[in-house]
Amino acid sequence: MQTIDAARLLGRIHDLGEIGRDPHGQLTRLAGSDNDKAGRDRLVAWIEAAGLEVAIDRIGNIFGTWRDEGNAGEAPIMLGSHVDTVINAGIYDGCYGVIAALEVIETLRERGLTPARPIVVAAFTNEEGVRFAPDMLGSLVYAGGLPVEKALATVGTDGAVLGEELARIGYAGNVEPGFLIPHAYVELHIEQGPVLEREGFAIGAVENLQGISWQRVTIDGVANHAGTTPMAMRCDAGLAAARIGLFLRDHITRSNAPSVATIGTMRFEPDAINVIPSRAVFTVDLRDPDEDRLQALEAALADFLLRVAAEEGVEISVERLARFQPVAFDLGIVATIEASAKARGLKSRRMTSGAGHDAQMIARVAPTAMIFVPSRDGISHNPREHTEADDLVAGANVLLDVVERIACSGWKGS
Amino acid sequence: MQTIDAARLLGRIHDLGEIGRDPHGQLTRLAGSDNDKAGRDRLVAWIEAAGLEVAIDRIGNIFGTWRDEGNAGEAPIMLGSHVDTVINAGIYDGCYGVIAALEVIETLRERGLTPARPIVVAAFTNEEGVRFAPDMLGSLVYAGGLPVEKALATVGTDGAVLGEELARIGYAGNVEPGFLIPHAYVELHIEQGPVLEREGFAIGAVENLQGISWQRVTIDGVANHAGTTPMAMRCDAGLAAARIGLFLRDHITRSNAPSVATIGTMRFEPDAINVIPSRAVFTVDLRDPDEDRLQALEAALADFLLRVAAEEGVEISVERLARFQPVAFDLGIVATIEASAKARGLKSRRMTSGAGHDAQMIARVAPTAMIFVPSRDGISHNPREHTEADDLVAGANVLLDVVERIACSGWKGS
Repeated sequence: MQTIDAARLLGRIHDLGEIGRDPHGQLTRLAGSDNDKAGRDRLVAWIEAAGLEVAIDRIGNIFGTWRDEGNAGEAPIMLGSHVDTVINAGIYDGCYGVIAALEVIETLRERGLTPARPIVVAAFTNEEGVRFAPDMLGSLVYAGGLPVEKALATVGTDGAVLGEELARIGYAGNVEPGFLIPHAYVELHIEQGPVLEREGFAIGAVENLQGISWQRVTIDGVANHAGTTPMAMRCDAGLAAARIGLFLRDHITRSNAPSVATIGTMRFEPDAINVIPSRAVFTVDLRDPDEDRLQALEAALADFLLRVAAEEGVEISVERLARFQPVAFDLGIVATIEASAKARGLKSRRMTSGAGHDAQMIARVAPTAMIFVPSRDGISHNPREHTEADDLVAGANVLLDVVERIACSGWKGS
Repeated sequence: MQTIDAARLLGRIHDLGEIGRDPHGQLTRLAGSDNDKAGRDRLVAWIEAAGLEVAIDRIGNIFGTWRDEGNAGEAPIMLGSHVDTVINAGIYDGCYGVIAALEVIETLRERGLTPARPIVVAAFTNEEGVRFAPDMLGSLVYAGGLPVEKALATVGTDGAVLGEELARIGYAGNVEPGFLIPHAYVELHIEQGPVLEREGFAIGAVENLQGISWQRVTIDGVANHAGTTPMAMRCDAGLAAARIGLFLRDHITRSNAPSVATIGTMRFEPDAINVIPSRAVFTVDLRDPDEDRLQALEAALADFLLRVAAEEGVEISVERLARFQPVAFDLGIVATIEASAKARGLKSRRMTSGAGHDAQMIARVAPTAMIFVPSRDGISHNPREHTEADDLVAGANVLLDVVERIACSGWKGS
């Protein structure tokens, strides 16, 4: 059983992770920035050194294609992720998937065989969405979900225009997004959650990606003196807000569903120690891999808000901030991931991606799945993001095997 | 039955309420400010016009004394409150009690009789505590609870020194605080709560003042991805905080005590829509008129914090911000208030003051009680603060009767 070159894989991850650090050592490569350019340049240098054909599309997505005469007419297998980062990032999110994709191609090439299909490593623009909205912008454009002209006109949080920034850093390509429609897309990524580590699995075979519902809830009560207003005479917006979060947790626990609900932001008005809150404003993040269940959860929340409004004597209004339906991945590829893990003696489990990934966009145009490896303590988007070297290598080897299995019926001798 | 001059009382309340308005019409007379000086000057002019003897003590408290040869040796009856305000204030808080005190004295004088004791109208410095801490500073110094030199050195939120500001506005007097120890102190005030209005009482006979316990609670959980972290694997500081507020309300409701608990401020970290809160910082304001019950409530909270820490997997730390024991007022004066209200056909009830007042300080050195009148919707510290004219007049008339009853055994013909 062949394996990828662990030293090369890990060395590149750490090399790329040193690009874009500030004087305090913090790693930040926001899309379209000078640091992003430096990271992209390093990746392109590796792709070129591997003898692959480099293409940049109009939204700045980077592709390195291994193709030869024998398979040039076939739809490729695409592997990839992204190399932009959040502010003060870890080194694995996105980069691991791109570098492992390149590693898989190099390993296969070094064996001297030609696969039945071209194999492409892809790095998509602005996956993190920190500087430009929406996140997963490059893959969304690639999949036809957003016109490229509109995407290029996106104004960032710092006032910069994405198209101008891509031109400035030399990544405004000429190829039309979507120029390669893959036979299959596989994305290897750190889990960014605690499940694999806690449950002792090395590999997650990701079968779907949660739908997301974001709402902002505003509760209006009555500000009154904290000392002079008896408990029974209050319209306390803060207590009403407290009930929402606890309801959601109880509801999900009772229903035994894989849903998650998070109240991540909270603001009180007037926010004074001796004044009953007149207003509480908070966000509700609901996710579930099943659209019907997500809708049922939204409905249960809406019912409970009516009940709380009546019981607490407050007014509640809701603003929808974002809504994405769940994405179902290709179960054939998922089964291939499971089989590949099993063949290597790696414990795997099927799972749901709770985070958004480029794979959810590419899934619109091609059979897609993802492979997860454990994240220590479930932490990501943070310098403490960490995956053990053995897990990184195991994930890349499973990706290697999956590619081989997808292409295997057509392997040709060189 | 004699009555105060309603037109004069109401006219002065509205006159004083026009002093210290900004171009937007907002009323603000912070202690020691130019606006405070303007309000004080108006009050002193009224006191002088009424023929009373004006004294200013070293901390800027203003006293107007009606005394004559027949009662000069007796301890006075002191009536008063304060004329400083919060930012964007209403016109009744404090001012009503001072102006009504002057009104009572003028009414009695106009009758041509000399009471058995001198009667003093007092206006205490910096009751609101917005610019200088602590609140009720002037009456605290007067009662001997804070050395005058230390109080004069207090630095305000704007960097000003209280003593310098009092000198600047002409209210750094020469008289020692505490120069008059009253026979009794009675403070008339708006309720600043909803009880009298909701229950249909015209007069509150205030028998005590709540003890206050202020704590800042910090809950440390673990920040994790809102999409990838199953509900059962979370250490959500925000949900732990939610449980505290609901526990306090349930506990108080179950115990059927007059305690109140308020979580008025709340801050989440990192305060991001898709991140489980790693930290929640909030304040807890507990009040009860009984010290034992207040301590029991504090203990119940402490126990519950331990329980939440264990159940939610979070760390909880508590910082004490303020603690005042309850103040019991003089039940003889309270009974006199009730009798006076009844004689005028006014419905009264005994009650607790949930807010702090100068009366709680003067209670350290003299028999003290307070009279409350209804506050519309319980609102105070706000331009919407309002008490009906009839209620203002009724309260002043009860104050008049209370003074007469306290002094009645010794009324002398002039």
